[in-house]
This record gives sequence, C-alpha cells and structure tokens, in this order.
Amino acid sequence: MTSASAAPIAAAPVVTVPIALGDRSYDIRIGDGLLDDPASWQGLPRAAVAAIVTNTTVAPLYAQRLAAALAPHYGRVLQIELPDGEAHKDWQTLDQIFSALLAASADRKTVLFALGGGVVGDMTGFAAASYMRGIPFVQVPTTLLAQVDSSVGGKTAINHPLGKNMIGAFYQPLRVLCDLAVLDTLPERELSAGLAEIIKYGPIADADFLGWIEDHLDALLARDRAAMAHAVRRSCEIKAWVVGQDEREGGLRAILNFGHTFGHAIEAGLGYGEWLHGEGVGCGMVMASDLSVRLGLMPPAFLDRMQRLVERARLPVRGPALGAERYLELMRVDKKAEGGEIRFVLIEQLGRAVMRAAPDALVRETLAAHAG
Amino acid sequence: MTSASAAPIAAAPVVTVPIALGDRSYDIRIGDGLLDDPASWQGLPRAAVAAIVTNTTVAPLYAQRLAAALAPHYGRVLQIELPDGEAHKDWQTLDQIFSALLAASADRKTVLFALGGGVVGDMTGFAAASYMRGIPFVQVPTTLLAQVDSSVGGKTAINHPLGKNMIGAFYQPLRVLCDLAVLDTLPERELSAGLAEIIKYGPIADADFLGWIEDHLDALLARDRAAMAHAVRRSCEIKAWVVGQDEREGGLRAILNFGHTFGHAIEAGLGYGEWLHGEGVGCGMVMASDLSVRLGLMPPAFLDRMQRLVERARLPVRGPALGAERYLELMRVDKKAEGGEIRFVLIEQLGRAVMRAAPDALVRETLAAHAG
Repeated sequence: MTSASAAPIAAAPVVTVPIALGDRSYDIRIGDGLLDDPASWQGLPRAAVAAIVTNTTVAPLYAQRLAAALAPHYGRVLQIELPDGEAHKDWQTLDQIFSALLAASADRKTVLFALGGGVVGDMTGFAAASYMRGIPFVQVPTTLLAQVDSSVGGKTAINHPLGKNMIGAFYQPLRVLCDLAVLDTLPERELSAGLAEIIKYGPIADADFLGWIEDHLDALLARDRAAMAHAVRRSCEIKAWVVGQDEREGGLRAILNFGHTFGHAIEAGLGYGEWLHGEGVGCGMVMASDLSVRLGLMPPAFLDRMQRLVERARLPVRGPALGAERYLELMRVDKKAEGGEIRFVLIEQLGRAVMRAAPDALVRETLAAHAG
Repeated sequence: MTSASAAPIAAAPVVTVPIALGDRSYDIRIGDGLLDDPASWQGLPRAAVAAIVTNTTVAPLYAQRLAAALAPHYGRVLQIELPDGEAHKDWQTLDQIFSALLAASADRKTVLFALGGGVVGDMTGFAAASYMRGIPFVQVPTTLLAQVDSSVGGKTAINHPLGKNMIGAFYQPLRVLCDLAVLDTLPERELSAGLAEIIKYGPIADADFLGWIEDHLDALLARDRAAMAHAVRRSCEIKAWVVGQDEREGGLRAILNFGHTFGHAIEAGLGYGEWLHGEGVGCGMVMASDLSVRLGLMPPAFLDRMQRLVERARLPVRGPALGAERYLELMRVDKKAEGGEIRFVLIEQLGRAVMRAAPDALVRETLAAHAG
C-alpha cells in the first residue's frame, strides 16, 4: 500500500472479493477510479435498455460519467432520479422506478445500475427483484456504508409505515463496484455512518481488525485512500464469509445486525431519516455492548472501548429519549424478533457474536444508561 | 375412477403431483374433501401465527373451515379478507396483507394460506415472497383456473397501471391443496375460465389430452368429479413437467402462455376485471391458433377445432373492438416482448408449441378476423 506514493500516476490495483453463492455468485471490485475504468463494465449481459437509478444528490456528481461509461454497451441508458433519503425508501418511490421502466418499455433483459448509497441500493435491488419477476442489476455504491454493508449480501427492501425494511427480497447483484474515489464527495456525517458498519465487523468477527480500526481511525476520517481500501476490503471479506454460509439469514448472518436492534428502534422511533442508519448502528453498538456486559458476557472494559471508538468516529453514543417502553415495543416488531421475543446480537468474546434474548429489566438498565 | 360410484362414502384417493425444483420442491395434492382432511395440514412448519388470505366472496364459504383445520397447528390464525377481483390485484390491496401482518406482529416464521382463486394466490404468493424478505406459504386454490394454472409454478405478481403482472417474484409454495369439492360453489363463468387453461395444455403439450378434453367437455361442464380429477391432474402434470425444466421462464416455460399475449391485451385494453383471465386466454387461443394457421404452421382445420372447443366451453371466441393499433401497442409492452418485438406462442404441431415473432400484417389479419 505504501508503494502507491512512489508511483502516484499508476492506477491502484483493483481488489476483488468473491461472494460464493452458487449460481448467484458475484464479485465485489474495490479500487480507485473504477467508475471511469472500461474494465468495470465488461462482461455484463447486453440489453436494449439499461437504467441508472440514483438520487437527486448523487446524480449531478456521477450520473453523467456512469451514463457515458455504459453508453457503448446498451441501446439506451435511462436515468431514474429518486428523492434522497431514508424517508423516501417506500412504495411510492419504488413505484417511480417501475413506472419509468414500463413507460420506456424496458423488457426483462434490462440491467439496472444502483448509483448511490444504501437507500438507492436497497430500492434498486428490490425493483430488480420484482420488475417482471426479476431482472439483473449492478451495484455502484457511492457511500462508505453502502460499500461495506448494504451492497454486499443481497438484502433488498423498502420500509413500511409499521416497520423498517419489512418488504423486500434476497436478491443478488451481478457485480458490485466500490470506487474509492467517489468517497471524496461524501459529507462528514455519512463518512461517520459508514465507519459504524466498519467498526461493527471487529467485535463480531475479527478482534485484530478492531485493533487495526482503532489504530487507523484518524486515517479513515481523513479518507486516506490506502486505509480506506483496507477497511472496505476487510469489511467485505467478513461480510462475504458470513453471507456465504447463511444467505437467507437462517442463523449466523444475524450477527451482522450487531447494534441494529437498538439502532432500528432509534430510527423508527424518531421517524426514518432523522438519524442516519449508521448513526443508529453506532449508538446501537454501544447499547448492545452495554447489554453484553450486563449479561456477564464481556468485561466492563469492552463497553468503554466500544464507546470510545464510536465517539472517536464522530457518532452518537446516546440514544434519544423515546422512553424504555417505546424502545421495547419498537424492538418487538423488529424482523429478528420471534414470537414477540427480542433476539439481541451480543458479543461473547472479542470477534465472536451470539444471538440471545435478555430480561426486559436488563434492557431497561441499558436504556437508562445510554438513552434520554 | 368408476369404483367411486360403487362406494360413494369412501374418501376419494388423494393424487399427488410432485413439483421437482431442488430445495424448492413441493407437492400438489388433488382430492375430494381435502379441506376437511387433517392430513392436508400435517408436516407444515409450526409457527406462532398463521394467516388465511382470502377474499370477500370465498371467506363466507370456506374460511371458517380452514381456520378450524389450522387451529390445532398455530397459536393464532389471522384472517385477511381482500376485495374480490382482478381489478384489486394492485399494490394497495397487497399492502392490506402487509399491514395486517405487521399489526399482528407476525414474525418471519408466519405461514400464509392463500384461500381463493388466482388473484388471491398471486397476491398471497408475492406477499409471502416479500414480507420480511420471504415467509412460507401454502396454496389452497378454490377456482378451477387456480388449481390447474396459477397455483403451480411459483409465479406471483400484482398488476401495475401500466401492465399486468409486471411486479412480482418467482416464489414456490410449501404445498398446494386442490380440493375438488370446493369447485361446486364456482360460478359458471369461472368454471369456463378454468377450462380455458385446461384446454391450453392439449395443443401445447399433449395431443391425446386435447382429444380427451373434447370427449369429456360435457362431463367437465357438469363438474363430474372423476372427469375433473383427471383434468386437474393432467394439467398439473404438464405444467409441472414444463416448470421443472424452466423454473424462471428462460425458454420452454413460455409455451404455457399460449393464448396469453392476445388475452393479456384484451384484459388490459378493457381494464382488468372486465373479462376474466381465462376468458382472455380462451379467445387468445383462438387468435393464436389463427395466427399459427396464417403462418403456415398448422392446417386450417386446427383453427376450426380450437374455435369449436373454446365455444363449447362457453368462452368468448371474438375479442373486443380495441382497434388493431391498440392491440399491437398492448402486446408490445407484454413481458414476453423483447426489444419491442412481440413473441407469440404458436402451435407448430399438435402437442408442440413454438415461440416466434410474426409480421404485423399477419397479426392485423388475425385481429380483423377475430376481434371487433
């Protein structure tokens, strides 16, 4: 990685993380400047129509470059611009994609390109899963969070007024292209939100990676390209390893939701879009670490370590004052709840997570310590 | 089958048609009185919640019996009643299912039971495919059309204002239960609509079956239980054979759409719900037979034979006067169209179908002869 400074003109090597899912296998490519690299678009299926699905924030930055890159491969390249933000991850916005495709007579060979963050990726993925019962799609994640999390693993969804990500599909992309250069335009707040998901991979799967993140957090906050390349790659590798063993979230995959049960409750309780998903996850990890300590799974020092790291990443460590009852109610409707029992992802050893229920009384103690 | 009259009290034997789709394999069970047979519900996954999805027409007839049959196996059995008819096969109605499930805190182990015709089956199947990214479901088709067609093969969908069945998923049920006794309450018009799909299997896959249908059409119209058992079984076997080779409609499966390209245009042109789907298919088969003759694939006698059979089944043989341009426009937006070219399912030999394009001029001749 240090050799890059010796030859600054040369293209950085493209790293490929293979996602092994049988006939749904695909590659994640990570590199600097992939958007403008013709190799990025080679080997994809040909079609009369391609559609770039993006949002009003990302479109002016990158849509034209992507359209130019795709033009040689498709008869027509549509551009579908959605409103920006989690608050729009709903049926009405999804239907804009369907209506645009149908109005353009897009057939079932049409390839969709998701150009944006997690919301664009989730909606484009679900649109691809559902349009004419399934068309191919490619992820071009433009946020750090999408690069390390939502573009890997095939989870697609929209929100429902009664719950987050409740309507969706497991549907794999043909390819994921993580261009590190596009992270330069990312707002600070979204950078931090992405770091939350990167931090997550340490406690659940790789104690050494947690140490590496602590050592390189300043470089990551400064968007150092080499540090970012390693963080994205290692995050994707860990997620790929987990998803490869449990594509449909029968068991192991649930560990990827560390911090998410509390985080989703915060997001839903405040109304989607108030906190970024990664902010909810950051604070949720502190809460889940606290609960892990209260259950005697981890020593108190673990909570301190997690709280310090989340704080250094400029993420919130205190949840909003929704009231414990409301938190519990929101967590009971979470997808991971079964028969009304909340299943928390907890840490039982650095690098190893476990799913389990917890007494309401302890959860209330956690909420009293970290919310309101 | 004649032995049934010698021992009228004995339960008719249950016939099982296996659908071989790897880890998505399931059985279709066909028999008399399955709704009240405890064996029908054994071996399904346990869950805290089951939900019967049905419509306002079917609910008063069979929902209570199904709820009673399911009660021993589930903690709670919800009943979700949708408005009846193709006109309601849309997002708003689908969302009633999601909202009811979420309001009841139904988790991802919840089993859905589709009790109704093709519309209920399509919507329940897509709801099952999408709710929390996929929950199990069972088909209990109560119309002949659903028993021989829409409950077999895993196609689920809703309509979009710009096209029929445009939003959906390939998603397999755990089991399909075709209770022949429930056909007794079927309106005449829906009986005929179901016969259209049964007739279809002859020309596309089994010339002998076409002859059998001609010989037994009066018995089928009289709802003779033995004739119906054979017709449902043979139809499911043919569909199973086709779907087993081509689950996701890459090629062969498209032959099941014989009559559907014209039929969908009629349905869409008049507004969904005006003609029943089976009525569109009946008339569409006459048109597709005509086009097969005009292309020189089949002798004129084939058209006469198909037209006579469709007519005897009390199905329309003339399409509405939409105008040839409108027909062509509607067919071009059909899912089977690729790059704007309409792909027709045509008969090239009794029992063998082929997909191909046709010159617009010939299609206009067919429309001039059979529409308006």
